[in-house]
Amino acid sequence: MSSGLSDSLKKYSVSIIGASGYSGAELTRLLLRHPCVELQDLYAFSQVGNNVSDLYPALGCNSMYKQYKGERESDIYFLALPHGEALQLVPSLVQAGKIVIDLSGDFRLKNCSEHNEFYKQLKSPDAFMTYGMPELNLDQIIKTRAISNPGCYATSIILGVAPLFHSKEHSLDVRAINCTSTSGISGAGRSSKTELSFSEMSENIRAYKVGIHQHIPEIMQALGTSATDPSFDFTFTPMIGSLVRGIYSILNVQLVQPADTEEILKLYRSFYQTAHFVRVRDTMTEIRHVVHTNFCDVHIASITKKGSLTIITALDNLLKGAAGQAIQNMNLMLGINEETGLL
Amino acid sequence: MSSGLSDSLKKYSVSIIGASGYSGAELTRLLLRHPCVELQDLYAFSQVGNNVSDLYPALGCNSMYKQYKGERESDIYFLALPHGEALQLVPSLVQAGKIVIDLSGDFRLKNCSEHNEFYKQLKSPDAFMTYGMPELNLDQIIKTRAISNPGCYATSIILGVAPLFHSKEHSLDVRAINCTSTSGISGAGRSSKTELSFSEMSENIRAYKVGIHQHIPEIMQALGTSATDPSFDFTFTPMIGSLVRGIYSILNVQLVQPADTEEILKLYRSFYQTAHFVRVRDTMTEIRHVVHTNFCDVHIASITKKGSLTIITALDNLLKGAAGQAIQNMNLMLGINEETGLL
Amino acid sequence: MSSGLSDSLKKYSVSIIGASGYSGAELTRLLLRHPCVELQDLYAFSQVGNNVSDLYPALGCNSMYKQYKGERESDIYFLALPHGEALQLVPSLVQAGKIVIDLSGDFRLKNCSEHNEFYKQLKSPDAFMTYGMPELNLDQIIKTRAISNPGCYATSIILGVAPLFHSKEHSLDVRAINCTSTSGISGAGRSSKTELSFSEMSENIRAYKVGIHQHIPEIMQALGTSATDPSFDFTFTPMIGSLVRGIYSILNVQLVQPADTEEILKLYRSFYQTAHFVRVRDTMTEIRHVVHTNFCDVHIASITKKGSLTIITALDNLLKGAAGQAIQNMNLMLGINEETGLL
Amino acid sequence: MSSGLSDSLKKYSVSIIGASGYSGAELTRLLLRHPCVELQDLYAFSQVGNNVSDLYPALGCNSMYKQYKGERESDIYFLALPHGEALQLVPSLVQAGKIVIDLSGDFRLKNCSEHNEFYKQLKSPDAFMTYGMPELNLDQIIKTRAISNPGCYATSIILGVAPLFHSKEHSLDVRAINCTSTSGISGAGRSSKTELSFSEMSENIRAYKVGIHQHIPEIMQALGTSATDPSFDFTFTPMIGSLVRGIYSILNVQLVQPADTEEILKLYRSFYQTAHFVRVRDTMTEIRHVVHTNFCDVHIASITKKGSLTIITALDNLLKGAAGQAIQNMNLMLGINEETGLL
Repeated sequence: MSSGLSDSLKKYSVSIIGASGYSGAELTRLLLRHPCVELQDLYAFSQVGNNVSDLYPALGCNSMYKQYKGERESDIYFLALPHGEALQLVPSLVQAGKIVIDLSGDFRLKNCSEHNEFYKQLKSPDAFMTYGMPELNLDQIIKTRAISNPGCYATSIILGVAPLFHSKEHSLDVRAINCTSTSGISGAGRSSKTELSFSEMSENIRAYKVGIHQHIPEIMQALGTSATDPSFDFTFTPMIGSLVRGIYSILNVQLVQPADTEEILKLYRSFYQTAHFVRVRDTMTEIRHVVHTNFCDVHIASITKKGSLTIITALDNLLKGAAGQAIQNMNLMLGINEETGLL
Repeated sequence: MSSGLSDSLKKYSVSIIGASGYSGAELTRLLLRHPCVELQDLYAFSQVGNNVSDLYPALGCNSMYKQYKGERESDIYFLALPHGEALQLVPSLVQAGKIVIDLSGDFRLKNCSEHNEFYKQLKSPDAFMTYGMPELNLDQIIKTRAISNPGCYATSIILGVAPLFHSKEHSLDVRAINCTSTSGISGAGRSSKTELSFSEMSENIRAYKVGIHQHIPEIMQALGTSATDPSFDFTFTPMIGSLVRGIYSILNVQLVQPADTEEILKLYRSFYQTAHFVRVRDTMTEIRHVVHTNFCDVHIASITKKGSLTIITALDNLLKGAAGQAIQNMNLMLGINEETGLL
Repeated sequence: MSSGLSDSLKKYSVSIIGASGYSGAELTRLLLRHPCVELQDLYAFSQVGNNVSDLYPALGCNSMYKQYKGERESDIYFLALPHGEALQLVPSLVQAGKIVIDLSGDFRLKNCSEHNEFYKQLKSPDAFMTYGMPELNLDQIIKTRAISNPGCYATSIILGVAPLFHSKEHSLDVRAINCTSTSGISGAGRSSKTELSFSEMSENIRAYKVGIHQHIPEIMQALGTSATDPSFDFTFTPMIGSLVRGIYSILNVQLVQPADTEEILKLYRSFYQTAHFVRVRDTMTEIRHVVHTNFCDVHIASITKKGSLTIITALDNLLKGAAGQAIQNMNLMLGINEETGLL
Repeated sequence: MSSGLSDSLKKYSVSIIGASGYSGAELTRLLLRHPCVELQDLYAFSQVGNNVSDLYPALGCNSMYKQYKGERESDIYFLALPHGEALQLVPSLVQAGKIVIDLSGDFRLKNCSEHNEFYKQLKSPDAFMTYGMPELNLDQIIKTRAISNPGCYATSIILGVAPLFHSKEHSLDVRAINCTSTSGISGAGRSSKTELSFSEMSENIRAYKVGIHQHIPEIMQALGTSATDPSFDFTFTPMIGSLVRGIYSILNVQLVQPADTEEILKLYRSFYQTAHFVRVRDTMTEIRHVVHTNFCDVHIASITKKGSLTIITALDNLLKGAAGQAIQNMNLMLGINEETGLL
């Protein structure tokens, strides 16, 4: 791993705002081992004054969580905050010329009214940053200094159907997509809710926010349409199951014109040919194939003569669905190998 | 519960052929506590000569598993065998006038060619018994003495959409149904496969038999169409997750004509008005709401203006999906309260 | 099961104070199905006004949780409250002549100073009720109308070593007992603590209150000694693991004089000869052998020449460790079959 | 992390014999990322001809498992084979001057009769290699080229009590040690046994080999005594619980002379002062603190006035208990930083 990566003598300094949640902890773990950066400050809220090693002993890190008071000393800032809280912090960091990667949903949507509807929060009109999904937006990511990192469900769904929409060779007309995704419970964050307790969730499954999840407009935007007036039927049923990490998405796509297996496979293979972290797999994918990795696996499970596709994707919600993709974006913005610190 | 059920002095004698699997064990547990029957013989194969209390100590039962040699001494026979093995045994039991309830898929399908295709097994042409889903077939079940007990996935899907197809008042035209179901691993039976080991399946999810599962023709038959030439688009993605018991089904239905929420809810409420074990619930259902019960919960999670429904069902695969429904059928055939021994 | 149990036409009315916790829910489930009682009122605190079917749909019970305001209309009262809260309620119920079964630790200890030390709560001097462990105290339980139901860990440990201390034939001198017990997380109650969330506890184990758990004086009292000046060395390490229900206790006993295997086995078999719910097993016991049952399994796993015994017990913390044992006590106090409603 | 480690241009070539089991997969993962080695050949048995990426997609490795036919081309050989199978292979690799690290129990015991008794296998008289526990044997490991890597339970127990026996300052006399350890099910290897299936082990705990586990003589040897005539009472109860990875050991130690808390803590702190991977922790340790790391956490949970200690250790059975410790040994033998590739 990482041989030859540390050619540049200078290391970038990096800080995390919102470092004590699960995504923040994964960022901490990845950045501690990343050869091109030096982890500077870990900012938190309720955990201010506590030591990382008390909250996450597995990280082997003895830093203390600090309160963020507007510091701008690092080269790079990751924000892993509850939705709504980055809105205030990002603009001044951007103005100060920092590289900023925000993991919240605050800056993902161009359409403010959809943002306001799905997040139930006001957003200032121009609050939009480059959407950081390298398999879709590589050219823009390379040029920008401010990234809005995609949502976990959104990543698992967009990567599963993007080739149908964005293939340079030929796109396929889509009539309907029904998505059902099962997420690990870490997706709900470090929580003290009874309904997320072990006793309630062990050997359990529960759907929630059916048809109203805030990742819906993000998915539609990435597919080139809108949530309020979509160009195809779309449903999304998110679930949590008895697992900590991972998202497993079943994507049922109805094409307008049937397509044959070879055509579809060729389309997917071609689309992801240069992608380091998306694997088009011939055999069934499983959560355990991707957990603790930055891979998103995509498997075409079924193609019917009538044009129904069943596509299955798997990723780790805290890595490719959050911290891992954020590091991937950082690598691209720094001009270093996309895989650095992620294998 | 069940007070006054044991008025009749005579108890029916019952035996189980295939008693050592998980469904067999649930039948054993339920029949031991059933006030109107006496459990006579437990027949098994690899476990012949072993004591129930060694294999399933929780049952508190000291009987020994016997080899079945054609005995016909009981009034009632349950068969809980691997698919294909009941084909030989059922006819002679039926001829001998026994009440027979077969939990396998051997006698579920009227269409032999579909049976042969999906089960990859030959079936004799007239091998069909009354399909034992009381919420659909009550009148027939009451009259018959031979029941083919529904499949676990099939039950969870059929009960979720049956009101759309079989309402006496007015049915709704369906254009497409996409089903994704997550099953507990007990659905695979007592197994020694590496892929079902704890180390491989803990915190894991895996789809399998996408579009080719043997319950597909059973579902289509119950909905009044066929698997080979269905009257609507249909996909089915079965999955196993890290839970032992339960099936959680997400049913995305596309109606030809949109229907409003009130209309759909009224339809479902009316259809299941007299059903003891199907509960139409206003709030989200979860696996833990039904596990270790004979209930199938149905929740209409979303209805869009364009006529997309998301219906979610939950049941215990070993109870309403197997042994519980089998007892329910027995109760109906015996003319006793449908809930006897099941609450 | 339960044949002939409902001879008495009159059913006892029963209410539960503290019905919305996990033990309360198990009491509800058991009492709903018990042939000799009628469940009257379910009293709760934070859940007052909510329906049982919303909190525990699996119970199939549509009652509403009420606020307890001193009612005394039922024949029998179960109290399943946090420690300290029964102290106020029990005396007036006892004075009113009610049958009272308290599942808390409030009335278990005769020694007030030990109670105050381990529970960190004051207790009035004469607040002691009959200790409801039928395998030890049958004669007293039959005569009393007020029972203090044993603790879950205490039951699993006391039943594992009681024959060494209380055999009528000959007791064995014990030099030391080291107990390590793993409990299901339901033992912590319906909780909203982050440290009991699925994300923190899945695939995890954590010890707590090592050497200071409040069941220590209860265990010592039941073994005829005291926690502050015990007649043998005693350590207790409680743990929670990634399971909802069950307690698995490893009891390492050092005898003063070695005893041979036959002698020990005979002692245990004889001691539990008439016990309905303690099973001395020849083969290894497991949590799954007892979960959802009222059994406590005891297995002598190892006896060394030097007099070291390893005894392993398994029980369901919510049944034999709480609600099941409480029903067992009720049955004995009512003079009906000890197993009624528990098989 | 490990920046600057790859100064040396030459990388050592490494091969794994027995690469397809869980320990072999962890070795593969660690060696792929290790900056000083190049992974050459992966030898397996039943998986010969299969691709690593089919069996363990998370590794992101496209090599094929080969059959081992006596090749000696690599500089370093790891053997991760079932017990008994390394006996034949190791001598010729050692003779050929290779660095050899064997993860099995074949070469751990000096006392052949104890080996034969506990492993039920014959061993040639001089088959012993340096015991690779760096915290005990650093000086010997640095000098040797053939290492017998410790057992997982043995590591978790030895590291928990070693300071009592091997402190240079002053040892404490031990009268008895009772160990109970819960292991993740991966410790049983990639298995197709029904008793290790998800359906049997989810939410379950089971003890096994109580008092007869093959790690007992290894522990006793490391503590300077023997299993057949130990200098103190010793019991060991291994258990598997519903977790994949990790070992959690409760070590109840009875000292001959009581010692005070300060003294014990000082002893432990001093003993592990220079250890990179053993952490003496002030607060309770948990499995999740160490899983996916090479750390062994040690916590003194209780010290009584009578000299009873309760020490709790946690480690990842596949890392510090197997592959991680093996890499640690390799690093020491190569003269590079002990932590290389392990943080």
